[in-house]
Amino acid sequence: MTSEQLMVTAAINSWKTTVGRASKVFSNLTEDQFLQPVAPGRNRIIYLLGHLTAVHDAMLPLLGVGERLHPELDEIFIKNPDRAIASLPAADTLKTYWNEVNDVLWKRFEELSAEQWVARHTAVSEEDFAKEPGRNRFNVLLGRTNHMAFHMGQIILAPK
Amino acid sequence: MTSEQLMVTAAINSWKTTVGRASKVFSNLTEDQFLQPVAPGRNRIIYLLGHLTAVHDAMLPLLGVGERLHPELDEIFIKNPDRAIASLPAADTLKTYWNEVNDVLWKRFEELSAEQWVARHTAVSEEDFAKEPGRNRFNVLLGRTNHMAFHMGQIILAPK
Repeated sequence: MTSEQLMVTAAINSWKTTVGRASKVFSNLTEDQFLQPVAPGRNRIIYLLGHLTAVHDAMLPLLGVGERLHPELDEIFIKNPDRAIASLPAADTLKTYWNEVNDVLWKRFEELSAEQWVARHTAVSEEDFAKEPGRNRFNVLLGRTNHMAFHMGQIILAPK
Repeated sequence: MTSEQLMVTAAINSWKTTVGRASKVFSNLTEDQFLQPVAPGRNRIIYLLGHLTAVHDAMLPLLGVGERLHPELDEIFIKNPDRAIASLPAADTLKTYWNEVNDVLWKRFEELSAEQWVARHTAVSEEDFAKEPGRNRFNVLLGRTNHMAFHMGQIILAPK
């Protein structure tokens, strides 16, 4: 493998490992446990599950690899903080969305070449990208993996 | 820049951004605040500061780029859980170590070529690396960046 292929492999495996750990944590929680805040007064696990699902779903158009599956999640889980919207989808429904979104992303990730990974993402214009080549798909992948790890650190703190 | 150079840039910038955010959080905390647990009964911030410093310090020999600066931290912050060892270094001392270790790492990171990033780290033999080329420096960098994000998600939860 070339250096660039080894780097893509490392980055998508890091993503996949983090998704796998998260999925395992989510699969072991009851509906009641999803309603626990990660620390007193902080986000509930169900909110973070919805938040991560919405952020990952938004990666499909951001990376230019597909249409969103669940844009309706943004109002509850991105535009508003936890508890601002009283009625949330059931944790089981969100878990189904979580798996569905990550499955589609993974298929798209495996299809991208190294050159496509370092090409621009859709939130930057061609003109700006010429000046700022760091605004590429690979950078989005690393940032979103970190974002997921950040919230998983919180989720594992919630009382069981 | 070549694809591999763009990927190295993305990965070391992701590391640097995460270190920068952590350093800012640490610099704004008082000695008393460092003694707060991130959630009831969980690790105190001072423990996580020492833990992250020890893990980053160990990256110097793991990546084959230098000797450890503070191996004495492992006993308190890696081999034992929080509160097992009664007497910890002062938070100010640990913050000095934190900055020192990350400064040295950053200098070494900037010196490594793309080929050196995908070469084996020192915890894998040449023989095993031939079979598992994923056990390279780049993989360590991504893993440690995620590890830091995971604990930073926890640290920002502590009551101020």
